[in-house]
Parts: sequence; structure tokens; C-alpha cells
Amino acid sequence: MGVVTPPKQDRSRATRRRLLEAAVSCLAEHGWAGSTVTVVAERAGVSRGAAQHHFPTREDLFTAAVEYVAEERSTALRALFPDDPGDRRAVLEALVSLYTGPLFRAALHLWVAASDEDRLRPRVTELEARVGRDAHRIAVELLAVDESRPGVRETVQGFLDMARGLGLATLLTDDSARRARVAAQWAALLDAALR
Amino acid sequence: MGVVTPPKQDRSRATRRRLLEAAVSCLAEHGWAGSTVTVVAERAGVSRGAAQHHFPTREDLFTAAVEYVAEERSTALRALFPDDPGDRRAVLEALVSLYTGPLFRAALHLWVAASDEDRLRPRVTELEARVGRDAHRIAVELLAVDESRPGVRETVQGFLDMARGLGLATLLTDDSARRARVAAQWAALLDAALR
Repeated sequence: MGVVTPPKQDRSRATRRRLLEAAVSCLAEHGWAGSTVTVVAERAGVSRGAAQHHFPTREDLFTAAVEYVAEERSTALRALFPDDPGDRRAVLEALVSLYTGPLFRAALHLWVAASDEDRLRPRVTELEARVGRDAHRIAVELLAVDESRPGVRETVQGFLDMARGLGLATLLTDDSARRARVAAQWAALLDAALR
Repeated sequence: MGVVTPPKQDRSRATRRRLLEAAVSCLAEHGWAGSTVTVVAERAGVSRGAAQHHFPTREDLFTAAVEYVAEERSTALRALFPDDPGDRRAVLEALVSLYTGPLFRAALHLWVAASDEDRLRPRVTELEARVGRDAHRIAVELLAVDESRPGVRETVQGFLDMARGLGLATLLTDDSARRARVAAQWAALLDAALR
């Protein structure tokens, strides 16, 4: 009996996913300057040619990587609260966790690089707008709030801005103890404001 | 009558200041990779030798630059509300302005570079902690709040995190219209919470 070989399309999809995940870790650990297609292909155990077949340019690879991981995390966040949001504070604390960890770190490197690199800027700007809108939509949905009420939209937006600021604070040091206290207090403020 | 020459010490101080201001603009515009002592010296109209007399290494120059400008901005912020804080919402909106513009952009480049560069990380971490404590102290002072009340400290910290998140959102696009709405809304919420 021979080994069962997965269909070609599945293998191609698995290779693509391995490349995207390796790209995010690479960007989070080494920044834009240290992240090339070659380095990522090696990390993913994929040939340079295969990597370039999936992603012709470095810009293609890294914007696709940040987008892929952001989508994965949105899906995971929605799955945490499958039916009823229920505990709004738990939702708020989960939203903060979207902005800490390797994805946010990788996205931050990509944003800063894009602010200086003309080839990267338009597509990262477009990507950031899309990811930001998606995070906002998830927040509104999980918090079950009515955005037609004056101030609700800005309240939720400001909370997500705060979560991004907390993500920034973890860039150089472990800020988790302070972050937990701030997130709990702001969850209470927001809970009161949205009632 | 000859031209009046300023004393040597004053000239040295003026040169130092020119270098620090050029360093911040350079970091904001070109990022860490594009910011060297030579580029900054040229921009400041100072010889490379004179620049190195003031700042022996690139790390010395850029950490000193971010610190200098942060101090200038703290002083300017305190001067906006000389006697009585009075309008707390105006104070909150002014605090947000600390985190937009070229200084925040330069600091962001420095933080991201420091997260990947071992020579830069310890001193940027130390600098960030100092600048963060200073911003917190100014906020508490201008808002005239009592930090011994439970939750007040975390409320103010979260607001400064939100201001940093709003600063991040201006990195790639002009976010000023949205920022003004979010800042106004949260200034109102915090004004109520801190009463």
C-alpha cells in the first residue's frame, strides 16, 4: 500500500499557508529590513522558486501574510463568543488581545516600513483600512451595540485605538500586568458608557 | 563695529539643539535605516566632526533627540494651562496632540528599530519609560485628579494609551477628522468618569 498523497491543490494551499505563517514570524522577529522572500522560504522549508510562484514580490508576500493572520484572528475571536456575547467585559478584554502578540508586532513593522517605502505604502494603507474596518465590525457585533445612537461609534473606535496603544506598549517590554489593569478599568468605563 | 559673536558655550548649545532637531525630522521622514550621523549633520549644517564631538555614536544622537523633543513638548503642554487646568476636556484634547506629529512619528521609528537592534534596545526602553512617566505626571497634574481613588490611575493610563493608538493611526494616512471625533467623545466620557 502506497502513502496517500494529498491532492495537488491541497498541497499548494498548505505551502502557501506555511509561507504566510513564516512571513509573520519573520517580520515580528527581524523587522522589514531582515525579512526577505529567501529568509521566509528557508524558514518555511519551501524552495525559493516555489515561494516566488506563490508570491512574485516581497511586498506581495508580506501584505498577504499580515492579511491572512488578521483574518485567522478575527475568525478565532468570533468563535470565542459563538451565540450571545453575554459578558461584555470578557468581549472587551478579548478585543484588547487582538492587538498584542506576534501579529500586531508584525503589522507594526509593516506599517512603519510602509511609511518610508513608496512601493509598500499604497497596499499597506489599503490593508490597514480593511483590517481596521473588520475589527470595528467585529467589535460592534460582539458588543451588540447600536451605532445609530450618537457617540457609540466613536466610543467603540476610541476603545480600539486604546487597544492599539496597549499593543504598542508591549513592543519593548512585557507590559502585561499594567495592561490587564488598564483593560479591566476601561472595559468597566465602556460598559457603563454603552448601557 | 564688529559683529557680536555669541560666547562659545552658547554656540555649542545652539549647535547641539540644531543637531537634535535635525535628528528628529530625519527619523520621522526616513526611519532608522535612513538616519545616520552624517545625514543629520548635513541637514543641520554642522560638520561631521562637530556632530561626533556632541554625540559619539548614532544611538547617542537619536535617543538624545527624542528625549529633547519630548521635553520641549511637555514644557509647551504645561505652558498651555498656566494656572488652573479649568476645562478638563481641553486638557484631554491637548494631551492627544502630544502623540501626533513628527515627534511621535520619530519615536515610533526609534521604538520599532530598538525592538530589533540590541545596541539600541536598552536605552530606548529606559527612555520610553521615562517619557511615559513624564506624560502620565503631566496628565495627572493638568487634570487635577486624585490617583489614590480606585481606578483613576488606570483611567488616565488608558487615555494615554488611546492617545498613542490615535498617533499610530496617523502613520499612513491623515486621520485627523476621525481623531477629533474620537478624542471629543472620550474626553466627555472621561470627564464624567473622573468627576
